[in-house]
Amino acid sequence: MHAINNRVSTIEGGKLDELNIHPVNSSISMTLNQDQLTTTTRLVTSPDLTKSSFSLNGRVYEEVPGRIKDVIIIAQLRARLAGRTNVYPHLCIESINSFPTAAGLASSASGLAALAFGLTELYRLDEDASSLARRGSGSACRSLYGGFVHWIRPNDTLGWTGGFQTLCSSVSKLYPASHWPELKVLICVASSQKKSIGSTTGMQRTVNTSQLFQRARCESVKQHELLLLSALRDRNFDNFARIAMQDSNQLHAVCLDTWPPCIFLTDVSLKIMNWVHAMNRCCGRTVVAYTFDAGPNAFLFAEESNVSFLLHLLALCFGTKSCETTSEVPSGDSSINHVHVTDPVDKMVKNLLFRGIKYPVYSMPIDMELLKALPRHEGGILYVISTEVGDGPRVLASNLP
Amino acid sequence: MHAINNRVSTIEGGKLDELNIHPVNSSISMTLNQDQLTTTTRLVTSPDLTKSSFSLNGRVYEEVPGRIKDVIIIAQLRARLAGRTNVYPHLCIESINSFPTAAGLASSASGLAALAFGLTELYRLDEDASSLARRGSGSACRSLYGGFVHWIRPNDTLGWTGGFQTLCSSVSKLYPASHWPELKVLICVASSQKKSIGSTTGMQRTVNTSQLFQRARCESVKQHELLLLSALRDRNFDNFARIAMQDSNQLHAVCLDTWPPCIFLTDVSLKIMNWVHAMNRCCGRTVVAYTFDAGPNAFLFAEESNVSFLLHLLALCFGTKSCETTSEVPSGDSSINHVHVTDPVDKMVKNLLFRGIKYPVYSMPIDMELLKALPRHEGGILYVISTEVGDGPRVLASNLP
Repeated sequence: MHAINNRVSTIEGGKLDELNIHPVNSSISMTLNQDQLTTTTRLVTSPDLTKSSFSLNGRVYEEVPGRIKDVIIIAQLRARLAGRTNVYPHLCIESINSFPTAAGLASSASGLAALAFGLTELYRLDEDASSLARRGSGSACRSLYGGFVHWIRPNDTLGWTGGFQTLCSSVSKLYPASHWPELKVLICVASSQKKSIGSTTGMQRTVNTSQLFQRARCESVKQHELLLLSALRDRNFDNFARIAMQDSNQLHAVCLDTWPPCIFLTDVSLKIMNWVHAMNRCCGRTVVAYTFDAGPNAFLFAEESNVSFLLHLLALCFGTKSCETTSEVPSGDSSINHVHVTDPVDKMVKNLLFRGIKYPVYSMPIDMELLKALPRHEGGILYVISTEVGDGPRVLASNLP
Repeated sequence: MHAINNRVSTIEGGKLDELNIHPVNSSISMTLNQDQLTTTTRLVTSPDLTKSSFSLNGRVYEEVPGRIKDVIIIAQLRARLAGRTNVYPHLCIESINSFPTAAGLASSASGLAALAFGLTELYRLDEDASSLARRGSGSACRSLYGGFVHWIRPNDTLGWTGGFQTLCSSVSKLYPASHWPELKVLICVASSQKKSIGSTTGMQRTVNTSQLFQRARCESVKQHELLLLSALRDRNFDNFARIAMQDSNQLHAVCLDTWPPCIFLTDVSLKIMNWVHAMNRCCGRTVVAYTFDAGPNAFLFAEESNVSFLLHLLALCFGTKSCETTSEVPSGDSSINHVHVTDPVDKMVKNLLFRGIKYPVYSMPIDMELLKALPRHEGGILYVISTEVGDGPRVLASNLP
């Protein structure tokens, strides 16, 4: 089973309710296609097990991590209340991500969503897997529905829990993956190193110390939320792109205003941001947008018709070795300079590794002026994962009766 | 004559009054010592000149730049009103900076202050050179007094100009350079390239488009201002350091929240920020602080007693070629690891160029654990200018009657 999510616009921004994990701000996320990015989690339980165990990407942990334990305890409590008979004390959990872990690619949201989904299936729980996932990692609650998902902050949804009125957040599916198939995602992996600061710790520090966050961020998030909802409804790429970029920049601005500062962006991140702005300026319209989660890797958005072109230019500007280029002036028009890449297929593959969805190789000549205007950083991107919006988690195999 | 200023805490943050150049926010600056950083400006006027001319660092401009023209026009107007007889139509201006121009080292503030001071001397004007300098470059108005200077935003100083009530900012000297002689400044020049966006254009865009600026920045600046005034009064390095860093981070946060974003910091800037935080954490107290103007170069602050130590570590972490280090365990205490740099004088000079104030070479062993905890970027810093707070502009030579 699998789940991965990618925040496109608004952020959790710390927790309003630390215990029950409800967010300060609403957020909208896209569930990425599990054909390209996936967490596979195997759950085994039996009365014969004498010890619980947890492994991530093959590494066995000495102890089951705290938040995973929390999710298990709540799932087992729910299962016992529902009268399930297969609630044995120990569980063996093996989880594998097909993409870098703890590098700002939402691996913990993906992992916790997979775990919560698996436990819900294992114990045949009636309750929502999303509320279970939330207890492990706030943003994981958005990864259970597929498509475009809205996590709404408590202010707007007053609820009752166990007889006490509490502030509750709610999660709802906005659109299925099929709503906007032309929208594509290119994940530029600049570094697969682990982050120096976790997003949960970082976000809480932001809420506690950033004056810009305390005085202005929430108001802006509300505006971004409304604008993004309209852009998604209308599949308006131009508006979607602007809000995604503005919100990403504001998120990283409040991170910088945190004390001590949380810096997730690197030189390559900044170069890619400038590259996107230069690209849109040169093209005279918005062809590409970026967003950064709590990490240095860019999530680029583009419409399908532009992806080949963009991948080609990403390879030229951020590939591991510069392409040799030959400049030639087409006869008859001396005012236009073009650059031809000799054997583009071969060069591009050598230049930058592409994973995920395959696109036709872009074979048109590239405008020399455009290439000159774009920032470059040889080897700045390790590889690109081409993906798109996809469905929610699924059961791969089960021997439950 | 010379003037250079360095904003340590608050920023101009765009102009409230575009025409008369009054700032949205108050700011506090330190005038840096002209023994290390200096603008030398030569003014020549005579009835025989047939054309005005302007050169900067030896480069002759085709036309006198607009804001320099503005300053000349106002100075000549004042001179004529005061009945001066040496107001000839043409002026020859030659200006030389002893430090990188347009790289976020306040070269335009320094240059415009020198020009305004020179014109005030040339025409023997009674009025304040500061108000003249402001017309050329807002922040230049702080560079005429020496020591620590406060530029107070219009809100707090309602004034009358020419019979109309207008919003006027005011400039006042807080303390002379002698107030805090132990405070030292280390300018880490990461790049002497010209900025991709000027600070004036950038700041105006921030005021117009950043929601964080519009909703929260001004309130924070007011708080920072009061805290910084106390820290300066008490020569409290700890508080001074924290406010300088927090305000610098917030300034660059609102730059990032600008649309399209203004990014002045680079990978090396971010590394130096992390280096400073790691350094203070390892030392268990605040030994160094940073601030960044509209550029990638760090201005580090430290107390005199720590400067040798800091310069040594800067060379080890950001010099052009790593020092060879030999690790040895002092006899009798196997729990402490030390690193000895072989022939530190020679290595440090090879490693990183130092300009400005000379400090004794640090010859104590460096704790290996400290060195391991510090971020590094070989060749990240081109050179360091060691300086301190200094006096205001002065006349170097004059043949005025």
